[in-house]
Amino acid sequence: MKVILVGFGVIGRGVINVIKRKREYLKKRYGMDLKVVAICDSSGAAIDENGLDLDLALEVKKKKGKIAEYPDKGVSLPATEVIETLDGDVLIEATPTNIENGEPAKTYIIQAFKSGKHVITANKGPLALYFQELMSYAKKYNKIFRYEASVGGAMPIINLARETLAGNEIIEIKGILNGTTNYILTKMERENLDFDTVLKEAQELGIAETDPYQDISGLDTAAKIVILANSIMDMNVTIKDVKIEGITRITPEALTMANKGGYTIKLIGEVKKNKLEVGPKLIPLDDPLNVKGSLNVAKLYTDLAKEVIVVGRGAGSIETSSAILSDIISIYLQMSKQ
Amino acid sequence: MKVILVGFGVIGRGVINVIKRKREYLKKRYGMDLKVVAICDSSGAAIDENGLDLDLALEVKKKKGKIAEYPDKGVSLPATEVIETLDGDVLIEATPTNIENGEPAKTYIIQAFKSGKHVITANKGPLALYFQELMSYAKKYNKIFRYEASVGGAMPIINLARETLAGNEIIEIKGILNGTTNYILTKMERENLDFDTVLKEAQELGIAETDPYQDISGLDTAAKIVILANSIMDMNVTIKDVKIEGITRITPEALTMANKGGYTIKLIGEVKKNKLEVGPKLIPLDDPLNVKGSLNVAKLYTDLAKEVIVVGRGAGSIETSSAILSDIISIYLQMSKQ
Repeated sequence: MKVILVGFGVIGRGVINVIKRKREYLKKRYGMDLKVVAICDSSGAAIDENGLDLDLALEVKKKKGKIAEYPDKGVSLPATEVIETLDGDVLIEATPTNIENGEPAKTYIIQAFKSGKHVITANKGPLALYFQELMSYAKKYNKIFRYEASVGGAMPIINLARETLAGNEIIEIKGILNGTTNYILTKMERENLDFDTVLKEAQELGIAETDPYQDISGLDTAAKIVILANSIMDMNVTIKDVKIEGITRITPEALTMANKGGYTIKLIGEVKKNKLEVGPKLIPLDDPLNVKGSLNVAKLYTDLAKEVIVVGRGAGSIETSSAILSDIISIYLQMSKQ
Repeated sequence: MKVILVGFGVIGRGVINVIKRKREYLKKRYGMDLKVVAICDSSGAAIDENGLDLDLALEVKKKKGKIAEYPDKGVSLPATEVIETLDGDVLIEATPTNIENGEPAKTYIIQAFKSGKHVITANKGPLALYFQELMSYAKKYNKIFRYEASVGGAMPIINLARETLAGNEIIEIKGILNGTTNYILTKMERENLDFDTVLKEAQELGIAETDPYQDISGLDTAAKIVILANSIMDMNVTIKDVKIEGITRITPEALTMANKGGYTIKLIGEVKKNKLEVGPKLIPLDDPLNVKGSLNVAKLYTDLAKEVIVVGRGAGSIETSSAILSDIISIYLQMSKQ
């Protein structure tokens, strides 16, 4: 199993750490001999067809900031060239999310399919913008395309709906798909603080990003429900089809009033036939959707199993890499049966 | 895909109804041509190698109570002989649970493996008592063994842990795995009623069984945590290893007191290293384990994804059959790749 990793930020390093941790387990449990044959970042790449030294790769990145500085095997080749020319089974695409045009991830993913590689991505951008196009490339080149980590981090939802609940029609999805906003609302509610104060604190703690616009505007949640709609509800929609409202206008007074009536307020993403919506909603206090802190939750309504709810950590480098690892294993098992 | 169904009670009929409902979908989506070649109950069997008429089978069972009365193709053969001699891909074992010795399910399952059939069961008995033995037969005869419906009905937990969370080590499981007791405790709490009153009412509504011992004693939950321990935590335990306490001594006063302190009381099954336990526990009101009514919930604690919680319907004939259908699809996909 030869893996090419593109993107060596928080997620990419998480993937490498998880592979290091699980390498022996993968060999023992699945007979998988996993080699990372290339790691690319914006500086270039480290390439070794016999498998890179992962400790060394992490150290080089930490000390020098550039994977191209990897001794002997570091090169200044762009990722596009590595993907196209290097022999490998799977591309793990972990570059930063770009919700405007999905690049450079989109190009990398298509190149990987064209050059005969399966693809795993954690990247919402290309999926929310070009889902059908990317799927058609996967189909054309007969390659597997997995993206569990793109929605809900470690909260397993896509593979849950498609495989664990196989046979069920997913009629409706409703959930909290953004941990930052859930953290902010939970804290505002518990400590009676206003939005700006909590946002500032969350930024200082590194829970919210310096530019929190995508999270608090609801855009991040909207991208995720588009992915869910396309991938597990057979829809064909983009982010333009979603009615979006953020949480910036929620006050601690509104939360207190909601509480008094037996409710809380959550930023909910919702998909059903003819309705894609993101916005603050009243949720009963004893509803399973009322999860606290930065947890994510999704409620699927299906024709046979009826309601199925799943809760998990929506962020974190190891947690997100857990979803990527499950995708690696799934691809390996499918490859080894062919 | 030739299916033999043994057991034509609530679950068996649910399976047939779900197959009827999903037959076209299975053909379209997976290319699966599913035929039920035999249905067995205690009266005998209906057999048709070209596939039984499922509407007719349901009607015969409803009107005459015996599948052996199926016109022309009804026979008084015992299930053992049908399983052994009839050509088929998968045995769906849906006979009543026997927590004493696992029979007759255990015999049927082993026979199916020996005669070259994959097996799906919804039956806790043989799994809680003879897990390792049954697995060894599956391995010896190189057959697939699936049992998602045996724990939590439509709540997907086994396949979730083994496949969707593949690569994760499951360190701890904690959950409500019995809908009847959850219904009773929820009702006692909400309406301030005592145990006996609520139990009686639940029996009248058909939510609790006439003999509710297995549910209220915690035995049913214990069987389920044994299955989880063996199947997703690589343990080798039986029901004798579980410390069990039921809910018969819980009073409405205890629930009110717990509520005042911010807690509720739930019948919790718990597995971790060196600890298998079933008993009433205090659960914080805002904990995801505090689900209401007859819902089931399981909290998995894993090394990478950390906590993952899943909630679903623990009972119901269509809901349970949903889990069996997912197992059918999974086996079909594995067969068609070989």
